Amino acid sequence: MSQVKQALDGNRLALSKLITKIENGESESTEILDELFPFTNRGHIIGITGPSGSGKSSLVNQFVRELITRNDPPPHIAVIAVDPTSPFTGGAILGDRIRMRDVFEYPSVFIRSMASRGAFGGIAAATAAVAQVLDAVGFDPIIIETVGAGQSEVEIAGLAYTTIVVEAPGLGDDIQAAKAGILEIADIMVVNKSDKPTALSTAQSLEAMLAIRMELAYGVKKTGNWTIPLIKTNAINAGGITELIQAVESHRRYLIESGEWERKRRKNMETFLDRLIQNQLLDQWQHSHQAQDKQALLQAILDKEITPYQAVRQLI
Amino acid sequence: MSQVKQALDGNRLALSKLITKIENGESESTEILDELFPFTNRGHIIGITGPSGSGKSSLVNQFVRELITRNDPPPHIAVIAVDPTSPFTGGAILGDRIRMRDVFEYPSVFIRSMASRGAFGGIAAATAAVAQVLDAVGFDPIIIETVGAGQSEVEIAGLAYTTIVVEAPGLGDDIQAAKAGILEIADIMVVNKSDKPTALSTAQSLEAMLAIRMELAYGVKKTGNWTIPLIKTNAINAGGITELIQAVESHRRYLIESGEWERKRRKNMETFLDRLIQNQLLDQWQHSHQAQDKQALLQAILDKEITPYQAVRQLI
Repeated sequence: MSQVKQALDGNRLALSKLITKIENGESESTEILDELFPFTNRGHIIGITGPSGSGKSSLVNQFVRELITRNDPPPHIAVIAVDPTSPFTGGAILGDRIRMRDVFEYPSVFIRSMASRGAFGGIAAATAAVAQVLDAVGFDPIIIETVGAGQSEVEIAGLAYTTIVVEAPGLGDDIQAAKAGILEIADIMVVNKSDKPTALSTAQSLEAMLAIRMELAYGVKKTGNWTIPLIKTNAINAGGITELIQAVESHRRYLIESGEWERKRRKNMETFLDRLIQNQLLDQWQHSHQAQDKQALLQAILDKEITPYQAVRQLI
Repeated sequence: MSQVKQALDGNRLALSKLITKIENGESESTEILDELFPFTNRGHIIGITGPSGSGKSSLVNQFVRELITRNDPPPHIAVIAVDPTSPFTGGAILGDRIRMRDVFEYPSVFIRSMASRGAFGGIAAATAAVAQVLDAVGFDPIIIETVGAGQSEVEIAGLAYTTIVVEAPGLGDDIQAAKAGILEIADIMVVNKSDKPTALSTAQSLEAMLAIRMELAYGVKKTGNWTIPLIKTNAINAGGITELIQAVESHRRYLIESGEWERKRRKNMETFLDRLIQNQLLDQWQHSHQAQDKQALLQAILDKEITPYQAVRQLI
């Protein structure tokens, strides 16, 4: 039985190996993704983003645990951790992993950290490919956790059908995600650590900002009838987790009924296709050119004999 | 007089307009960069990165002020703020800009925030092009401020000849940048907010990590003779700023004497050239293809008649 069939059959080891091949851009990647493609577009891709220190990972932990304990049989849930500061990722030090251990132990949960940018020319594209694999083999939901800063993280959040932005009181500067333009991408807002004394004022600031955003959205370019909920959570005692799950489920229904799901799917697929085209063009060009040509021109640029643009005109 | 000549002559308005054209990818961009290219490779590009809440912006402020007041005539200093949470950028709210006002008022300082990804296919490439312009018109140093998380930010930091990584005590999780692998790129480490009670333990943890890194660097792959200094600063009362300036100057001397400057320059130029080649290939392909072809194939993918890879093979 092929590795792809094994993965579709629920074999975790086969699945891990497939993902590694795709991350490394091995030559089989194309066939793997081709073979899995007919099975895609079933899982709900949920993005969870927010500044480090917002307790995002603990929230994911609670969210996953609640989904599993309230459903029988437990759903198959995948978590892709892209946040370099997340305890899910390989970069974690200082014992952070311990916090997440309980979720690791559920047999229906699959956790994968994205460490490298892969061979797709960017971590966003690599994450998209891995999400396709997890979708095809039947995970639902697929949770992508990113840190709420940086362009590549916003791109990754763009993959999600539902994006949850997590804030917390007392992170030095108030409401960091709002500053980073992260608020723009929220379908659901969460104020975590709601037991902290300043949680109320954080929630009020966010509510004011959301009101402005909703007004803009409805006044200038009416994009839909979704009202962004603001949910207060406490990842320590699981406060607010039920409300969060309800909000996610109600957003999923909204997406399907409004046609937003299909629009989003088209947009994601177009981005993925554009990236494939770009990679393919570069591959072809590299195969038909001598590496020395480029190196000679690079030297000429460094010697200021020609400019970079003149070099490109000579090369192509 | 052309805008480029005006900018080379010190005209700020002309300079701003040139940068906007380049950010927007206007057709003139190529000629502008071509014309400026012979004047590049003079300024010292300094990257300053660290988590938001580390007081990075205030530190940049102090650093710039000190450079200006200690030199006569004052140097021409450019600051490119890529950090979306920075008070330099357009995304800033909540009155943060006030903190930076004094630096804004020095006539020899030029501040520019990078808001959009530009037409270069990424904010890292756009930042590289803007840094080239600022270098050509005579700014030295050129300071690039980024937030220490996310792949694009690490790429941007890669443009710098000298990278300063800023940490501060009490940012929720200990030593966030270390986790994010940011430590790997540091030429100079700073512990800011050194007046805080926990500053000492933060500094000690960092020193231990640096020791490990230096050992690795010298044991496994000897990369040079630079010892990464750890400097304690306090951006409120300018404590440690003199030491920081000395460390930056001594790193610049090290780069030039060791040949690292030229190696770094070659590496940056190769990255820039690769990006130009990629953009050029995509441009040519788009000009020779009908947009409808791609849209028809996209629809076929969405209908699961073909896979994304089959579509690319048909297109190219």
